[in-house]
Amino acid sequence: MDIKFCTACGSPTELKIPVDDDHVRSVCTNCGLVHYNNPKVVVGCIPEFNGQVLLCKRNIEPRKGKWTLPAGYLENGESVQDGALRETLEETRAKVSIIDAYRLFNIVFVDQIYFMFRANLMSDEFGPTNESIDVRLFDEKDIPWDDIAFEVIKQTLEHYFQDRKKGDFPFKIFDLR
Amino acid sequence: MDIKFCTACGSPTELKIPVDDDHVRSVCTNCGLVHYNNPKVVVGCIPEFNGQVLLCKRNIEPRKGKWTLPAGYLENGESVQDGALRETLEETRAKVSIIDAYRLFNIVFVDQIYFMFRANLMSDEFGPTNESIDVRLFDEKDIPWDDIAFEVIKQTLEHYFQDRKKGDFPFKIFDLR
Ligand SMILES: [Zn+2]
Ligand SMILES: [Zn+2]
Repeated sequence: MDIKFCTACGSPTELKIPVDDDHVRSVCTNCGLVHYNNPKVVVGCIPEFNGQVLLCKRNIEPRKGKWTLPAGYLENGESVQDGALRETLEETRAKVSIIDAYRLFNIVFVDQIYFMFRANLMSDEFGPTNESIDVRLFDEKDIPWDDIAFEVIKQTLEHYFQDRKKGDFPFKIFDLR
Repeated sequence: MDIKFCTACGSPTELKIPVDDDHVRSVCTNCGLVHYNNPKVVVGCIPEFNGQVLLCKRNIEPRKGKWTLPAGYLENGESVQDGALRETLEETRAKVSIIDAYRLFNIVFVDQIYFMFRANLMSDEFGPTNESIDVRLFDEKDIPWDDIAFEVIKQTLEHYFQDRKKGDFPFKIFDLR
């Protein structure tokens, strides 16, 4: 996000390195407020039910019509677990319980961190929402690999099915480049 | 951070729930830009050397003069690992190599997520910096428990020494309340 005007007083900002800092920041030319821009956290999960995985078909851009796992920006006031549950409910109407943390992906070129959990569907209640035109359980063999919305979601699913063969799901960090 | 003025055009904002949203945001009264405020990620590590742990004594507020582990805000353009290495170098002059992810703490009342790694000091080179008035290796028995700067750092160290007795350091998530 470009910060052209000060959030506190509305005056123009300038780009400079503040005293005792080592990064260029947007600094207010009037009140001196330093504006920080930090990476955003995206939280989501892999909802499981009887060996199947729940995917949702995006009803919004970007990648409208493509399939994905429920995930979205972490909001102020919630834990990463809370955020993953909320996003799952918003995108699939499903209630899940978290099994464990599974993957962290650094996506530095868009200043995002994806934090993905494994989770159990608590019932077979799920369905379309404002954000998802379709919500469905998939066996591994039926995953629409060529129609997955985002590379990070594709990799999460690939890792997941590989780990499932071994019956072990260690938490790991990967960098998307 | 209160966003009273639009970062794109400098006009006053108003607090409201945008269409298709479910959170109150600062929305520009002129150009309509929606400003999102998201949790910030703090990254750091537990630097180990011959069974000792490296702590730094803060030279800056808050908690100036108290001891802590090297940690700080993740910046745009870096991975969580990069950020932990950078903060350690800035605060202790030590170069470390990351062993593994160790703890995630949700601190929802300040909209922060702490992500802590275990790490090995790569040499015995370390010392004071602008940010740390003193940097020292501590045996477990000498940790200044009553002078640790932040509760999240105290808990990280407590967990670490408990896990060390078992020789097993599983990644776990905790909520600070
Ligand atoms: Zn200002
Ligand atoms: Zn505006």
